[in-house]
Amino acid sequence: MATGRTLTVGMVGYSFMGRAHSNAWRQAPRFFDLPADIRLKTICGRNPEAVRKAAVDLGWETAATDWRALIDDPEIDIIDVVTPNDTHRDICVAAAAAGKAILCEKPLALDVAECEEMLAAARKGRVVHMVCHNYRRIPAMALAKQMIERGELGDRIYHYRARYAQDWIADPEFPLVWRLQSKIAGSGAHGDINAHIIDLGRYLVGEFREVCATMETFVKERPVSPGSKKTGKVTVDDAVTSIGRFKNGALANLEASRFAQGRKNSITLEINGSAGSLAFDFEEMNRLRYYDAREPEDRRGFRDILVTEARHPYIENWWPPGHLIGYEHTFVHTVADFVRAVVAGKSVQPTFDDGLRNQRVLEAMSTSAQTRQWVKI
Amino acid sequence: MATGRTLTVGMVGYSFMGRAHSNAWRQAPRFFDLPADIRLKTICGRNPEAVRKAAVDLGWETAATDWRALIDDPEIDIIDVVTPNDTHRDICVAAAAAGKAILCEKPLALDVAECEEMLAAARKGRVVHMVCHNYRRIPAMALAKQMIERGELGDRIYHYRARYAQDWIADPEFPLVWRLQSKIAGSGAHGDINAHIIDLGRYLVGEFREVCATMETFVKERPVSPGSKKTGKVTVDDAVTSIGRFKNGALANLEASRFAQGRKNSITLEINGSAGSLAFDFEEMNRLRYYDAREPEDRRGFRDILVTEARHPYIENWWPPGHLIGYEHTFVHTVADFVRAVVAGKSVQPTFDDGLRNQRVLEAMSTSAQTRQWVKI
Amino acid sequence: MATGRTLTVGMVGYSFMGRAHSNAWRQAPRFFDLPADIRLKTICGRNPEAVRKAAVDLGWETAATDWRALIDDPEIDIIDVVTPNDTHRDICVAAAAAGKAILCEKPLALDVAECEEMLAAARKGRVVHMVCHNYRRIPAMALAKQMIERGELGDRIYHYRARYAQDWIADPEFPLVWRLQSKIAGSGAHGDINAHIIDLGRYLVGEFREVCATMETFVKERPVSPGSKKTGKVTVDDAVTSIGRFKNGALANLEASRFAQGRKNSITLEINGSAGSLAFDFEEMNRLRYYDAREPEDRRGFRDILVTEARHPYIENWWPPGHLIGYEHTFVHTVADFVRAVVAGKSVQPTFDDGLRNQRVLEAMSTSAQTRQWVKI
Amino acid sequence: MATGRTLTVGMVGYSFMGRAHSNAWRQAPRFFDLPADIRLKTICGRNPEAVRKAAVDLGWETAATDWRALIDDPEIDIIDVVTPNDTHRDICVAAAAAGKAILCEKPLALDVAECEEMLAAARKGRVVHMVCHNYRRIPAMALAKQMIERGELGDRIYHYRARYAQDWIADPEFPLVWRLQSKIAGSGAHGDINAHIIDLGRYLVGEFREVCATMETFVKERPVSPGSKKTGKVTVDDAVTSIGRFKNGALANLEASRFAQGRKNSITLEINGSAGSLAFDFEEMNRLRYYDAREPEDRRGFRDILVTEARHPYIENWWPPGHLIGYEHTFVHTVADFVRAVVAGKSVQPTFDDGLRNQRVLEAMSTSAQTRQWVKI
Repeated sequence: MATGRTLTVGMVGYSFMGRAHSNAWRQAPRFFDLPADIRLKTICGRNPEAVRKAAVDLGWETAATDWRALIDDPEIDIIDVVTPNDTHRDICVAAAAAGKAILCEKPLALDVAECEEMLAAARKGRVVHMVCHNYRRIPAMALAKQMIERGELGDRIYHYRARYAQDWIADPEFPLVWRLQSKIAGSGAHGDINAHIIDLGRYLVGEFREVCATMETFVKERPVSPGSKKTGKVTVDDAVTSIGRFKNGALANLEASRFAQGRKNSITLEINGSAGSLAFDFEEMNRLRYYDAREPEDRRGFRDILVTEARHPYIENWWPPGHLIGYEHTFVHTVADFVRAVVAGKSVQPTFDDGLRNQRVLEAMSTSAQTRQWVKI
Repeated sequence: MATGRTLTVGMVGYSFMGRAHSNAWRQAPRFFDLPADIRLKTICGRNPEAVRKAAVDLGWETAATDWRALIDDPEIDIIDVVTPNDTHRDICVAAAAAGKAILCEKPLALDVAECEEMLAAARKGRVVHMVCHNYRRIPAMALAKQMIERGELGDRIYHYRARYAQDWIADPEFPLVWRLQSKIAGSGAHGDINAHIIDLGRYLVGEFREVCATMETFVKERPVSPGSKKTGKVTVDDAVTSIGRFKNGALANLEASRFAQGRKNSITLEINGSAGSLAFDFEEMNRLRYYDAREPEDRRGFRDILVTEARHPYIENWWPPGHLIGYEHTFVHTVADFVRAVVAGKSVQPTFDDGLRNQRVLEAMSTSAQTRQWVKI
Repeated sequence: MATGRTLTVGMVGYSFMGRAHSNAWRQAPRFFDLPADIRLKTICGRNPEAVRKAAVDLGWETAATDWRALIDDPEIDIIDVVTPNDTHRDICVAAAAAGKAILCEKPLALDVAECEEMLAAARKGRVVHMVCHNYRRIPAMALAKQMIERGELGDRIYHYRARYAQDWIADPEFPLVWRLQSKIAGSGAHGDINAHIIDLGRYLVGEFREVCATMETFVKERPVSPGSKKTGKVTVDDAVTSIGRFKNGALANLEASRFAQGRKNSITLEINGSAGSLAFDFEEMNRLRYYDAREPEDRRGFRDILVTEARHPYIENWWPPGHLIGYEHTFVHTVADFVRAVVAGKSVQPTFDDGLRNQRVLEAMSTSAQTRQWVKI
Repeated sequence: MATGRTLTVGMVGYSFMGRAHSNAWRQAPRFFDLPADIRLKTICGRNPEAVRKAAVDLGWETAATDWRALIDDPEIDIIDVVTPNDTHRDICVAAAAAGKAILCEKPLALDVAECEEMLAAARKGRVVHMVCHNYRRIPAMALAKQMIERGELGDRIYHYRARYAQDWIADPEFPLVWRLQSKIAGSGAHGDINAHIIDLGRYLVGEFREVCATMETFVKERPVSPGSKKTGKVTVDDAVTSIGRFKNGALANLEASRFAQGRKNSITLEINGSAGSLAFDFEEMNRLRYYDAREPEDRRGFRDILVTEARHPYIENWWPPGHLIGYEHTFVHTVADFVRAVVAGKSVQPTFDDGLRNQRVLEAMSTSAQTRQWVKI
């Protein structure tokens, strides 16, 4: 598309997610026919040396150490927030007030109050706002959404069963890194990975009505550093397991754990509807398994859809059938859709409202785990 | 083994389980070197014509219509109970009093009180007693037990996650058969299939400490017969989902449903320990997946053990490696082990005590679903 | 079926296949509604003690040491031949002359000439004759046959690709057992397992037109007994690999090996037609994978048909959906179909003519391997 | 790495492979710590308008229409050749004479004579030369190479079995595109995809000794354009199937087809060694299946290595464990290794010599298919 328009981006944060987002900003215009050119202007971080290196490595024109400089820069159209969660609120509220479109990493903020404030600010500023739940834009998940909306699972959903499983701290000798400390990380598996399968449940099935959860810290003391004999207390959850109900009557079963040996970044989910089922595993992210109960009885079976056909969501921009895409592509899809929304001045899911609703479910589960009661959303 | 001893069996009941058990009694001596010959003497059922036909079809010498005749028959050494659950108590108590060894289908009885009475009777009668949780004797499950006991999952278990899923009533037009009526069936998915994954949890991981469950009846009214416009109320659960804890600290997550389209008799379970994981799917019952976290980092992966080697439990009695066995073989294994126990006069798991403990977990889950509270076992 | 008719069987041979066939004779009437009762009268073997034990273990009334006694026994209706291949011809020709129905293990005989003689004798004797290629009666294979005949793969087949892989002699220290000696075994992987995938190709795709094969003996000397330092020469093939064409124009690619580490009894095959494909693996024998190219582009994928539904071939006689069957069931199906054919006086595939045609392909491949030329069938 | 050195690239060609290579040139420095900066200077194509657009879309400074301009440009260090095969020779010979490092797409050229000329030119010019067999740098394939070299499959390889299967022309109504015309494409599945599994065989197992192949054109006439009633003759192979031997005694079985419904870009291969086996499927390219025959008998099984650990080849440059990479990453790895070799002035596999040897196998198979004889390499 030849438009002449350019959108200028400033990004706050530069570690793991900064790397993934920078790649997406660079790649989206190469593979998607976007209605604007993208200019990667400023990357911001507190460590001057590190952020300068990041600017070079990741492809940004300049580096800054104070995020307010980005807010104040009239050239910058978009603020991309990839900092730790405790800073999201301030940056987003300021960006919204400055009229800048905002892409913010998940979880949207530390609590429901912050999320509400951010959503209000974004609405007041009339800016396009999006929370980066990138897994919605795995082509297999976007296809699942289409199939459910077209009724290919029938008119009712009975079950949503999801697990997000990792194993990186299953070894009790793994040290007490910051992610295992409540003060810094807020929660453990809950906010980090359970948040993703809650979002996919809301995206694919609908709003939650009530939940009952329990959390566990299997290893309560860990070496303060690798190999150290001195130990410190783990103050976040290692795993959270829950049951619940959606407003449409479907049963929910969600589990997130960092203690599932052999599961590296395994997001498995299954949705059972009245006329069919879907199953997915992120460790095979280019596939979606679909069972169609309306097929003849002796020909039925879960079919393994290789989601690499031109008609599948996002795929025509990549490679021919049978050529896989990977993890970072989900961010490219997110950025492409966000850019189109910004140019069109339209809303794009998942919005800050989705981030807020996700936070409400997270908090309901936390409350449930503490009170040992069912909690309504 | 040439022993000259013969064990004479009387079986009460003759439908689905009667067929599976009769096959086991016929086949066990053909494939296992048992310390006694087996004589299939009497099969018992209330319908004289049907039970006579069953005797011929299933290989029994005579048919009876009153189970007390079997208890009174001094030739009969073993009573095999495959009747509906509401009759287990009376038959087993009488059999125990008569000094007969007892194999009883699961669930052991209707409630904890009945189970306790049966266990007491069996102990008083000093008879060998076994509840037929046949899935323990899937070779893959017996291998899993060995591996856990040998420490191949490490010294701690973190997670037991199991689902028993079927789809035979997912269609709302499926009629209101007796299994969907509380008066006859007691419960729905709960007692029928959830009982199995509770038992496997107890077998492989240990005793449950507490549970929190919810049940759902998705389709509340059904045609009273196929195609009928008259409907009746479904009075059992369609699905039950739960979270819980084992006494050893492992988290439990169990789900049983008859509404999972595409899952025919799918028992999937995963156990995560500190040094490894196991995964199983009954629809691929000859396989056990094992992840060994102690392998070198770049060689790790779930391995797919085809449980058909001579060294695997029960297998040397069947076929060469790579030749699968099926569902009914689990009953043959059960009968073989039971016969050996009877001859040796020794206990054989799962005993009536296991049946009782299983019932306690089932009831705790039912109570939890009603009260919306956590319940201790 | 109440008919009053009884078919009396005499079986020659009593080792691995004798065990599988005896089980089939015992089980077929229990699970299939046959038009005749089955009487297991005489089992025959050269070692008097061993065959007497086999009679007891396997359920035969009497034991014999000379197979001619079975031929001469006027009570015997059916001769089942499970002896080594070099005896098939004499037994079958005699049985046919005596007017007995014949079930003969594969391969039918040692060479084409013998097969032709046997077929002629069976035709002359007007007896029902069947060669036991049991894999045709795996439900998944019978379903594949139905699907191909109904056109579900389209009107043309392009590819038949099959491999029969085992690993039991991959270790060079494995001793020189009789199966590795040409004088006794005739050939190695070729006649033993390649014969099966040739038969499945003929069953599912059609007659072969031409083949080009090569054979290899990877380990040419082996210990004469386990652990021995004395070695002897391996005089059969360890593996055979071939390309070819069917008369209908499909390409063939067949491979059989006893040197494929990790493959225990793996028969994998794939058939590609103009409108779809089928894939199968015997180590998952209850499944058939089917790709339907006529589905909408974005919904296509290999579906995993769990071949355990009542409508699937042979299944309604066994267990409910999702309950697997195993290896020995293929023999039960064979016997059930054979008995029906005998009572009806009709032909039942695979006949001795199929055994002959199979032998012709085997010999063409052997010739090709020796001459390094393509060979027409 | 801060070096100050810059390598300037000129690329000839700009379609599918041009897109994949451009991406690799852009991404390699972002994810790999290269010893030189990369400058994408000139892209060259015959259509002035199209190549100008490609320059903008793919990130090149300037566009050219005569490849000799790139050879003559003293700033350009590297010539990347992604044009149709009939132009490779001239461009590479000229580039070598000009002292430029060369990366050339596969197949290296049209025939053995051209390949020999190119290799001689590259050697005479003392330039770094590489043929882009990108599949060698799938991390799973690089891991397979390591494992074989470390002896993890034992000291002997018995079997290499590979299939490259697609289905894009299985529909007889698919039109007669240029790839189905011999004059333009040279061959069909043979040079296009069979070449890849020949290269992987040479990479992983060793040099071929002899081959016997056959080719087939299943659909001999096709519409000249979509929907047209006018048809033209297909002059290339639709499929090629072959058997052969490696110099080390392993058996080879290779098949390439564009007529395998449901297989989109399926490269499946299995290697059986004396102590283990490896299996791979490109449609699950982040996985490698490994069977270790030295494990205890009852614990053996193919393990599914998710090749996403930091210790796996190339992975530490990408994402954490369990986060997949895709097709285009194989080109990034190729470019990264090529750049390092250019800076170091060292050879990097696969060289033009590999391209030549690959061509020799291709031609031997073609000859074999024509003469119906075995052909030595």
